[in-house]
Amino acid sequence: MNGITIIGASGYTGAELVRLISNHPNFNIAHLVSSSSDDAFSDLYPSLLGREDKHLEPFNIPLLDKDTDAYVTALPHGKSMEIIAELYKNTKKPIVDLGADFRYKNIKTYEKWYNLAHTAADIPSVYGLCELNREKIKSSRLIGNPGCYTTCSILALSPLVASGIINNSSIIIDAKSGTTGAGKKLSVGTHFCTVNESMKAYSIGTHRHTSEIEEQLSQVAGEEIILNFTPHLLPINRGIIATCYADLEDENTAKELIDLYRDYYKGEGFIKIMDQGKLPELNYVVGSNNCYIGLTVDVRTKRVIVVSCIDNLIKGASGQAIQNLNLLFDLDETAGLNMPGWYL
Amino acid sequence: MNGITIIGASGYTGAELVRLISNHPNFNIAHLVSSSSDDAFSDLYPSLLGREDKHLEPFNIPLLDKDTDAYVTALPHGKSMEIIAELYKNTKKPIVDLGADFRYKNIKTYEKWYNLAHTAADIPSVYGLCELNREKIKSSRLIGNPGCYTTCSILALSPLVASGIINNSSIIIDAKSGTTGAGKKLSVGTHFCTVNESMKAYSIGTHRHTSEIEEQLSQVAGEEIILNFTPHLLPINRGIIATCYADLEDENTAKELIDLYRDYYKGEGFIKIMDQGKLPELNYVVGSNNCYIGLTVDVRTKRVIVVSCIDNLIKGASGQAIQNLNLLFDLDETAGLNMPGWYL
Amino acid sequence: MNGITIIGASGYTGAELVRLISNHPNFNIAHLVSSSSDDAFSDLYPSLLGREDKHLEPFNIPLLDKDTDAYVTALPHGKSMEIIAELYKNTKKPIVDLGADFRYKNIKTYEKWYNLAHTAADIPSVYGLCELNREKIKSSRLIGNPGCYTTCSILALSPLVASGIINNSSIIIDAKSGTTGAGKKLSVGTHFCTVNESMKAYSIGTHRHTSEIEEQLSQVAGEEIILNFTPHLLPINRGIIATCYADLEDENTAKELIDLYRDYYKGEGFIKIMDQGKLPELNYVVGSNNCYIGLTVDVRTKRVIVVSCIDNLIKGASGQAIQNLNLLFDLDETAGLNMPGWYL
Amino acid sequence: MNGITIIGASGYTGAELVRLISNHPNFNIAHLVSSSSDDAFSDLYPSLLGREDKHLEPFNIPLLDKDTDAYVTALPHGKSMEIIAELYKNTKKPIVDLGADFRYKNIKTYEKWYNLAHTAADIPSVYGLCELNREKIKSSRLIGNPGCYTTCSILALSPLVASGIINNSSIIIDAKSGTTGAGKKLSVGTHFCTVNESMKAYSIGTHRHTSEIEEQLSQVAGEEIILNFTPHLLPINRGIIATCYADLEDENTAKELIDLYRDYYKGEGFIKIMDQGKLPELNYVVGSNNCYIGLTVDVRTKRVIVVSCIDNLIKGASGQAIQNLNLLFDLDETAGLNMPGWYL
Repeated sequence: MNGITIIGASGYTGAELVRLISNHPNFNIAHLVSSSSDDAFSDLYPSLLGREDKHLEPFNIPLLDKDTDAYVTALPHGKSMEIIAELYKNTKKPIVDLGADFRYKNIKTYEKWYNLAHTAADIPSVYGLCELNREKIKSSRLIGNPGCYTTCSILALSPLVASGIINNSSIIIDAKSGTTGAGKKLSVGTHFCTVNESMKAYSIGTHRHTSEIEEQLSQVAGEEIILNFTPHLLPINRGIIATCYADLEDENTAKELIDLYRDYYKGEGFIKIMDQGKLPELNYVVGSNNCYIGLTVDVRTKRVIVVSCIDNLIKGASGQAIQNLNLLFDLDETAGLNMPGWYL
Repeated sequence: MNGITIIGASGYTGAELVRLISNHPNFNIAHLVSSSSDDAFSDLYPSLLGREDKHLEPFNIPLLDKDTDAYVTALPHGKSMEIIAELYKNTKKPIVDLGADFRYKNIKTYEKWYNLAHTAADIPSVYGLCELNREKIKSSRLIGNPGCYTTCSILALSPLVASGIINNSSIIIDAKSGTTGAGKKLSVGTHFCTVNESMKAYSIGTHRHTSEIEEQLSQVAGEEIILNFTPHLLPINRGIIATCYADLEDENTAKELIDLYRDYYKGEGFIKIMDQGKLPELNYVVGSNNCYIGLTVDVRTKRVIVVSCIDNLIKGASGQAIQNLNLLFDLDETAGLNMPGWYL
Repeated sequence: MNGITIIGASGYTGAELVRLISNHPNFNIAHLVSSSSDDAFSDLYPSLLGREDKHLEPFNIPLLDKDTDAYVTALPHGKSMEIIAELYKNTKKPIVDLGADFRYKNIKTYEKWYNLAHTAADIPSVYGLCELNREKIKSSRLIGNPGCYTTCSILALSPLVASGIINNSSIIIDAKSGTTGAGKKLSVGTHFCTVNESMKAYSIGTHRHTSEIEEQLSQVAGEEIILNFTPHLLPINRGIIATCYADLEDENTAKELIDLYRDYYKGEGFIKIMDQGKLPELNYVVGSNNCYIGLTVDVRTKRVIVVSCIDNLIKGASGQAIQNLNLLFDLDETAGLNMPGWYL
Repeated sequence: MNGITIIGASGYTGAELVRLISNHPNFNIAHLVSSSSDDAFSDLYPSLLGREDKHLEPFNIPLLDKDTDAYVTALPHGKSMEIIAELYKNTKKPIVDLGADFRYKNIKTYEKWYNLAHTAADIPSVYGLCELNREKIKSSRLIGNPGCYTTCSILALSPLVASGIINNSSIIIDAKSGTTGAGKKLSVGTHFCTVNESMKAYSIGTHRHTSEIEEQLSQVAGEEIILNFTPHLLPINRGIIATCYADLEDENTAKELIDLYRDYYKGEGFIKIMDQGKLPELNYVVGSNNCYIGLTVDVRTKRVIVVSCIDNLIKGASGQAIQNLNLLFDLDETAGLNMPGWYL
């Protein structure tokens, strides 16, 4: 068993990591670190009563490192780079960072979108989208675990931009996320009565995940891509559904594109490409590490419309972190992640 | 008081008409017609106990017409044209049709998208989107009440296509609707456990409202518009939110466009244009006949993104029917419709 | 038109008062008082954009009183008695208090359950449950508007305790409330992700409404009643459903008891007694000022089970406040409140 | 690996069995039997795409029995006894029946509450509530898997009736269930728009689970118990919360009773007794096979109030079926069931 220490454990992604690790055949929790309290974890998340009663601990590397084989950090951006700089210097263990600080190749892009100077840009890191970067991840010590919207969007669009069959300046991503994506922090915008029976778009043209999607898709395309990304808040707990639009350069059929996707994701256990005429729904993926993708070609407008679904807390955060840890420890990539969606 | 007879009263739009008319100062229910049962209406909708206990009646024009001042039909397409042909011939009362049969100028478009021969194409009708066709409605005898998605989409985009400042071939409408939009009919797709905590896109590129939006916007534009319209099903009862994308021809600012919208909808009591930096949310409009519209310009992609919200059962169906009836009877257009959204 | 000033307007009951008054034929908003901000009310509740754009004002009696005909206070307990003491001394206008401070006959009961000394116990007040205290309300200057759970529970049980046919020591009320009942205040317990797809019981045996229900039912019974009241939080916005249990002294049939209820509530426009074999559901009442009541007798256990439903924000708070104001101003008691439930 | 054949696999409990078995270390699906279609299972439940693509098969014992080690039947009552009689005669494999037909000791009780003659009363069966009947289950060939409401209710009340400290004629169970409990069958009562934002009580005094709870608790008590059981429908997918009331014979404290419960359920891995002052919430258990129990004593009324929570599809149906299969195959009782609740 490899001991995993979570730093910034008290939030939703921390809780989800603990839940997933509690059923992982090779990992257990070494330490749960938080600056907010020293509560028993099961007091914060009583679903874990008798399963994870460890108390939250302060950040203390010598103490943590004794029984830690890997760190996962779930911290606000800015704070993350600071803690990781210390970990990187004072331990030799791999780190998976759930925050944004180590996701960018171009630090200037990061600094502009996050309005923050990067103080640890010299630490080498790999973007942890396993399906795209598997080999690099295995040999890296620091993984920038992708954002939730970005995972869903990049998996939906990579085959198209890789193949060069769409007009890259025509991409529009209209994404909808469950409210766990907004985290545990209290705000009017996450009060039950504000969210329930409502829906909203937000941060149009300015959401930070825009820049992350653009950087990754640009790398896949081999040219700079600028696109529109519009996030919406859904009155549900979990799940992201992204409806993606792009102009086709030629008259491809849906069947051709589905074949293209199946070829691109050949052998990928977590990616499910729907048959022609079928589209994914959120309850197909919620509870799993899967990404379901379906697509349609509108011959009238010569556009392809791709719909992708993930569980934002699993494939969009904690599940993908475990997938990255599985790669780092040379385990079966699906270890602890091989559950189907809940459906009900 | 004017007596309103609803034909096809047992569905959700019928129930909503009865609810709204129960508080209308000038209308009352004359008859409730349905072929499905002779139940008391309050047995179907117990919220109306003691308010609308009339029984459903069969379709019988001589009997109905005695105390009817206007008819509202809420019938499946096809059935609607048949019943309305009879009403048109045998009575002199105005008719508001909630179905699609009399919404189209170009009958061929209707016949193609609905896959049905139109048998009453000679009866003149007006498209009942009050904000666009107010004067024509007043002097018409048959109103084709707009679809729910179409109302929300057309109100969102009309100012842009009227002004000629967008590339009309670039329009994408990503719309999301509450489940009342799918009606009362039982299906796996409307079972609670299928809808709840899930979301899906459906009928991509083929939803019939596409053709209705296109015909109306083409008229506003003075040229043919082909666009993408993608509907989604939301796990809530009421409300449509449409996120609309278009390429700007020039570098308009959000402020300029908001001014354009305010000018276009000047004096319209049900249209609320949000201030710059604000976007509508579904709970602003649910329960009201209002349409809230907000917009953003993304200077990076030179696109305008417009977000509009309505209550699909009110402004998208039964409320707009009453707005049309108000116009037909030369009443205050807001009579019986002047309630704010519920918010909670 | 009578001007209504709301003190403590920024919360949910304030918003609901403004919404209901916006469609009231005889009332308008004079002032909206809050200590928390000077925002436009429609900035807090954008559903009221263009309908109630007045700004929140500080508490200043001389300024308020000029165009105020009645005050409604929606303040925390303790704060309420303080403000009302000032209003009572310095104005002559009637006051409806949505809080608990003036609901109790026995001040000691109040002081014990609220753990607070009452500093204005000398001001005479009437318990504002209109169906029970109509005549006293009309001639009072200060009305203690009932709690939400209490309204639903007292209306459900009054006919039974008044008739003496149950064992008064056997009463159990198992009540379930939508989350608006918990108010606008942010807390882990009202975060969307905590409430959604969950349910909990809380404050078992200690909820303050217990004492209010007991005092009122004791008065109806003419003897002291001690009972169990268990509140639960529902993952919905609005509505209270109370399932009430009591041992029958004799072998009454459901039919007899329904007749008893219909007799007891004869002429009450807001009370609907269901036919035998039918039970109320929350969507029958949500959006209305109605209370629906259904009952069953279990001959095996000799118990009567009564189920009652109200909208906690309307009949349970702001609607009943308006019903009280209607009585105070000698208006039709249903003025502005005559809407059926939304159902959908 | 032991092959499990599910007869009546197309419903919700079938889907949940398949989901749980897909992660069970010792079981796999042998056959999925249904009379309704021959669809691929993943066409009905696309969350299982690539995980369970087997097609539904007709009921054909010789063909099924070759690779089946145990049968689980998920059939309507009546149909169940018929199929099981055939299985019992023609195979030697153990059977777990999710229906009601083999849950009763007293066949007359079954016949009265189900209004049906039992045609297979001679086949010996054991009531499959593992925590109460563990040893009998291990040596049985036919297990009557308990109902969902009954599991939650019996676990909540057994320690009290076993200890003789309550008045057994005072028991009231007020239970609330998510809508998966109503199954996959289409009806107005399970349409999304009927259930969402609403709640109802139903079958008061007549719900069949009443008789099952009574028979089991009577056995635990050693005397006949008659009680009130009131089910309610919740607008959520999963979970049952039961609030149970009983009169205490003596002045027991909450602490004493919690100790009693902890003693009674000592060593039970799926039962979690909350600390004093804490109560279970549905999201603690949903997704798990756990039953969380909390309690309070109301000294004013001398009543104990017990709150218990389970996932109706897991501990209330398919999870408990697997727990029974684990016992039958002498496996670790928690095999494949050792996941904590989802919480989010």
